[in-house]
This record gives sequence, structure tokens and C-alpha cells, in this order.
Amino acid sequence: MLDVCLLGTGGTLPLPGRHLSATLVRLGGSLVLLDCGEGTQVALRARGWGMRHLNAVLITHVHADHILGLPGLLLTLAFTGKGRDEPLTVYGPEPLEAVLKGLLVVAPRLPYPLHVVTLSGGESLPLAGIDGLRLACDVADHDDVPCLAYALELPRAPKFDVDRARELGLPVPLWGRLQRGEAVTFDGRTVLPDEVRGPERRGLRLVLATDTRPSARLVEFVSAGGTGADLLIAEGMYGDEDMKPARWESPHMTFAEAAQLARDGGARRLWLTHYGPSLSDPDAYLHRATSVFPATQLGHDGMTETLSFEQ
Amino acid sequence: MLDVCLLGTGGTLPLPGRHLSATLVRLGGSLVLLDCGEGTQVALRARGWGMRHLNAVLITHVHADHILGLPGLLLTLAFTGKGRDEPLTVYGPEPLEAVLKGLLVVAPRLPYPLHVVTLSGGESLPLAGIDGLRLACDVADHDDVPCLAYALELPRAPKFDVDRARELGLPVPLWGRLQRGEAVTFDGRTVLPDEVRGPERRGLRLVLATDTRPSARLVEFVSAGGTGADLLIAEGMYGDEDMKPARWESPHMTFAEAAQLARDGGARRLWLTHYGPSLSDPDAYLHRATSVFPATQLGHDGMTETLSFEQ
Repeated sequence: MLDVCLLGTGGTLPLPGRHLSATLVRLGGSLVLLDCGEGTQVALRARGWGMRHLNAVLITHVHADHILGLPGLLLTLAFTGKGRDEPLTVYGPEPLEAVLKGLLVVAPRLPYPLHVVTLSGGESLPLAGIDGLRLACDVADHDDVPCLAYALELPRAPKFDVDRARELGLPVPLWGRLQRGEAVTFDGRTVLPDEVRGPERRGLRLVLATDTRPSARLVEFVSAGGTGADLLIAEGMYGDEDMKPARWESPHMTFAEAAQLARDGGARRLWLTHYGPSLSDPDAYLHRATSVFPATQLGHDGMTETLSFEQ
Repeated sequence: MLDVCLLGTGGTLPLPGRHLSATLVRLGGSLVLLDCGEGTQVALRARGWGMRHLNAVLITHVHADHILGLPGLLLTLAFTGKGRDEPLTVYGPEPLEAVLKGLLVVAPRLPYPLHVVTLSGGESLPLAGIDGLRLACDVADHDDVPCLAYALELPRAPKFDVDRARELGLPVPLWGRLQRGEAVTFDGRTVLPDEVRGPERRGLRLVLATDTRPSARLVEFVSAGGTGADLLIAEGMYGDEDMKPARWESPHMTFAEAAQLARDGGARRLWLTHYGPSLSDPDAYLHRATSVFPATQLGHDGMTETLSFEQ
């Protein structure tokens, strides 16, 4: 099970009552934060899931509204409880390291290890500090800075065949290792996991796509070869085309464009977030998304849900 | 008249319901901000005095909780209305310029001129962009970084002697210049301001002292040779001595120490601010201050008042 919370749903600048868009994901006791604008640490504290086991932060891109809360958060983590010594890993695209170097002028010394992992898109790797969770990413299309869409993936073990294990006379203490995919040796013979496990089962997949223009590549990323996403969290910077700026090509999506991405990528559900500052009433535009992809919900600050494996 | 608002009253880190300590001062339509931690722009917006005519920002010192909101605010100013072109001046102690250089990695281009003025303490100068208001500062005693206490001073013109002006036969259109301290020539003779103005009158003086240990120098600064302050806004990081950390010498003041500073410096009133994160109920400690200096009030987020010249 993955707990998901939209800590904020605003784009560009923080507003009273609307934090900058950031998403918090919890697996067991561990936390992953996706994006960290000014004020995200306040929303994180208000959520009440603690901060001590925040082990990874994923930054979509280095624009201020997605990263400016990071130095303050890193300092606050240093004050948390009796002080933190668990490492924290920050992932993001170029020029993450250079931007962090600038921002951390106010946090030159942290009492815990800070690891920075620069991604270029296309990677798939275990998330540091969070057992069982994997991270995948691909290139989004945003303005003149590199920007990444992220997937958090929680694989599901195949079903364990208890009857078969009993037939084989396998002692119960060995079942766990076989469930986890390890071979075991017993009574002089080796039992392979596949002998006692059913077919592969779909795990959970959560995708975040902000800030970006629509693209075929993003559709493929959401789809992941047909797996799709249990939940797509995507930016809805504009309620409709009329809200877009007249004078320049905005590198953001409308509600309808986000809905198209959900539909074409085979997402099961869509949450909209990263509303532009002038989008004071997202409700008025919800039909623009639901007419394309009915399983759309408007995100709001504090919106929380638990994603569970399919029964 | 000076309007004063405590945008936030928290120290060290921002909390839900308590912004980091920052003070907003308004004279006419112009605004001065004193300190700018993470989230200050949200409190500034909530105050509703606008942002367009924010012409000066005074930073007491470069610790994160006093400066980390600046890059986000500077970017937001760029988006305000149809875009800003009025210059903004940021004042503060060393190493202000180096810290800004780091933080502005996320705001490399601003559409208005940004001036940075580094102060060392002891200066007295007109505040850029805000007619009539003066800035004075002196050295506070805080940890290992330079820190400044600030005074905002609004001088008051001497009373204009209307009867004397009439006796001299001065045409009314010339009165304004004499009131402002200029000599005028009329009917072949020069009239000096002192001929038609009464004695000097005390203006308004607002002093901010955070973060600092008590010091004789600060008492002198608040006093300003006996002038004192109409309002002293001072940190009350700790309700009492017992709240101080046991293991190190904290570079902050208790409620009682702030009250002593107000009393010894001849302040008329004291507002407490910059409460430590563990000081969840400042009310419980107010008596620690009022027993030393009765005219103490607990600051709270959004607390606003207008300071007027004495009648």
C-alpha cells in the first residue's frame, strides 16, 4: 500500500490557502517527497506523518516553485527530534547539483549525509532508503530547463502456493525466502521460487507529470508498455485554452491536455494539481477534463488516499 | 503615520499557523519589509497591502529563517500586475551579497533593478525609494554571523507659525517650501525656515532587535541619545531561562531580556516576536516581560497598528 498526499496544488507562486504543488508518498514508515517549493515544509508538518523518515526527495526541475523549499526543509530535518543521522537522497535533472550548491549557501553544514543523484531520463532504479520502492523517470518537455516525469513503482510478489509448498514438505521458516524470490536448499535438493509461486502480478504505479507540454514520449512513459498507472498526478496549470497567455507559448498543460495524457497513457485515475495563480476556482473547469477522461479528480491541498494492490 | 504589521512571529522554522518573523512597514503607499524567511511572501499577500510598492527589504542577518524567502519574493514581484520596473533595494550585513548570489541561482534574471547595500552598523541614511523615511542600524550580538538592529525613523517637521508668516506677508504658495526647510526669496528679501517654524519636534522611531544577546550597545541604539523608540519589536525566543538549551550558549533573548532592553533603552512600548518553535503558548510567559516592562504586548501573526505623531 502507498499513501499519497498532495501537500500543495499551486503553481508559480505560493498563495494563502494554496501551497506550491508537492506530493508526499509513504510506504511503511518511510517518506518520499516529490518537489519542494517555498513552504512545502509547512505543509509537510501539517500533514502529520513526521519528517524523521523522509529518505528521498525527487525534484522534477530546478524552477523556483519546485525547489526553493529544499534548503529550509534540509535545515529543519537537522533540528528534528534529537537530530537526524539517516542519509537523505535528492534526485533530479541537471543542473540540480549547481542549483543546490547555490541554495545551500544558507545550510553549509548538515548533520546527516546528503546524496545528490542527477538523472537524465530513462533510468529505473531502487529508491534509496525506501525498501521495495522503485523509481523510474523520463524526459518531460518544459521550457528551457530539463524536466522529468517520475513513476514510483511498488512491485508485487507473485502469489505463494501454500498447497504446493506443503506437498513439497517445505518447512514454514523457508517460505518467506521463496516468497521474496530466493532459491532455498532443503533435504539436499534446491527449490526454486517458481515452483511455489504463481504468475507475475501487477504492482502499484504512481506517475507524476509536471511541468510539461503534452508529448508522445510522456504518453509512453505513463503507459509503460501497457501497465499504465494506478494514479497519474498531472499539472492542470490552465482550466482551458483561454487561460493560456496570449503572447508566448506556455510550457504547461490545460485540464484537457492532462486528461488526454491520462486517457492515452492508460492511467486508471487522474488527479489535477499545479493550478496557475489566476485559477481561483478549478471546479469551474473540471468538465474540461472529465469530458476527456471521466476518472479525473481535482486535487486540493491535503488530499490524501491510500493506493492498494488490486484484489 | 507608520503602519506596522507583524507578518510572522516564529523563529528558526516556519510552522502551520505561525510564519517566520518578518515585519512590514507602510508609509503612504510605500512598503519596507524587515526580514524575509521562507513563506514571508504568503503572509505579505495575505496582509493585502499590495506588493507593487515594496521598495526596500532590510535583512537583519543571513541565517536561513531571515532570508530564505527573498528569492521567491523577488520572483513574485516580477509577476506582480503588469510586471514591475521600480527598483528594489536590499539592505543587510555581510555576507549579504555572497548569500544573495547563491540564492538567486533560481532567479538569474529580474525585470527590475535590484540594488544591494551592505551595512556594517552605525549608518544612518535615507531609505531608498521611500520618501521621508530614514534607516539607522547598529551591531547586534548573534552567534558567529554579523547581525544588525534597525531603526526606521520618520522625522517630523517643526510646527509652522501661520501668524508669523502672515505678519511677514508671505504668499501662501511659498509656505510649503519653508515648511520643508527651504529658504525662499520674496520681495527682494530672503526668508529662512527658522523665521516661521517652531522648535524641533520628535518624529516616529521604530526599532527592530532580533536575533541577539542583550548588550549595552543595543540599549544605546534603542535609546538614541534619549529619543527612545515609539515601538521596539524584539525577539522573545524563550519564555524564560528554563527554555534555553542546556548544552550551549544560545545567542537569543528571553522575554525578560527583551523587556529589559525596552526599559533601559527608553522604549515606549514593546512587541515580542521570533518565538522559538517549542514556545507554543507565549501567553503563559507574558508576565516574565510585563513584570520588567509593563508596556509589553505579545506579537502574533498579522498584528497591525498605526503609529502616529504625538499630539
